[in-house]
Amino acid sequence: MTPAEAMDVADPRGRALVVLAHPRPGSFNHALAAAAAGVLTARGWSAGLRDLYAEGFDPVLSAAELDTTRTAVVSPDPLVAEHQALLAAADILVVVHPTWWGKPPAMMSGWIDRVLAPGVAYRLGAADAAPEPLIQLAALVVLNTSDTPAERETEVFGDPLQAIWERCVGEYLPARSFQRRTFGPVGTSTPEARAGWLRDLERLLPS
Amino acid sequence: MTPAEAMDVADPRGRALVVLAHPRPGSFNHALAAAAAGVLTARGWSAGLRDLYAEGFDPVLSAAELDTTRTAVVSPDPLVAEHQALLAAADILVVVHPTWWGKPPAMMSGWIDRVLAPGVAYRLGAADAAPEPLIQLAALVVLNTSDTPAERETEVFGDPLQAIWERCVGEYLPARSFQRRTFGPVGTSTPEARAGWLRDLERLLPS
Repeated sequence: MTPAEAMDVADPRGRALVVLAHPRPGSFNHALAAAAAGVLTARGWSAGLRDLYAEGFDPVLSAAELDTTRTAVVSPDPLVAEHQALLAAADILVVVHPTWWGKPPAMMSGWIDRVLAPGVAYRLGAADAAPEPLIQLAALVVLNTSDTPAERETEVFGDPLQAIWERCVGEYLPARSFQRRTFGPVGTSTPEARAGWLRDLERLLPS
Repeated sequence: MTPAEAMDVADPRGRALVVLAHPRPGSFNHALAAAAAGVLTARGWSAGLRDLYAEGFDPVLSAAELDTTRTAVVSPDPLVAEHQALLAAADILVVVHPTWWGKPPAMMSGWIDRVLAPGVAYRLGAADAAPEPLIQLAALVVLNTSDTPAERETEVFGDPLQAIWERCVGEYLPARSFQRRTFGPVGTSTPEARAGWLRDLERLLPS
């Protein structure tokens, strides 16, 4: 059963959205995203995989979208609006992207900027007050790749991606389970190591 | 003297590149960038201001640019190549952007992804080895804005932008002086507070 066919199952356990940002088809990020969707489908979730590069997602937030006083909360960009609807309906969000400069690539950065809009993901409170989340996820799973050894990523670079996803995004998009793993260094890895990482993935995903 | 005229001065002290990413013309980010260029020009630097939104900069790194084995190091995108030349010639880099989800907006994220390419900003060493920087800056100045109170930015969100600019980018783009300041909360600020922030800016810039 493909993820697309799984969407037709009458009584799925719930919906999983897998969002991928990597420029090269056939990358290990693509393998991770496909494996995640496959594992979740096999476990009875209705899983959809969205490849932002393949879709031509536009990551640039416009001045109009910045205006939090506007009444329409859905994006004027139909593709962004579609992602907002998918996110609102999701029980599980899996994001897959490489670590570039300690942050997500611009493509994934813009998915966050544009899709997680006020009125969609959260409601802004009074000035200085915490936001009120509108989406409650069962699980947020972040799968990253890096060509930097793990020790250097943490000790030299400080791994800011952990704070971005767990704290900055997580505060507005709360999940009962948060899992993150960085796989790598990918560039120098063996096929056996990569196969092992794809198996490790199973433990990071909701049962 | 405007920054453009300053480029014609026969013997400038050196070059300053101010890069701005904010979608709304007239934003406080725009005021910060213009003030930074103005102060540096007044101090004898040849300062150029680049507004990424106004230029229509494309932040999406392509698969071709990801190929570090290619011989051409200059980007196939003429605007990216122009920014690479400006960065290579810069003694001072000032970046100005809001804090979105603890990270730069996609527009600035993609400026980092695409402009700081191997062969332009640094040379990759052997696997697992540290990169060899090709650019030595006198100063890297990061000016951010936020609508989050500073305490919440640090304690709840962990301020990952500090690690992104000082450690992740700074490791590849070393600067004798690193300065960063987050101004805000902007949304609830008074005109007097904003005027004060623009004066504070002078202390963050090289003399």
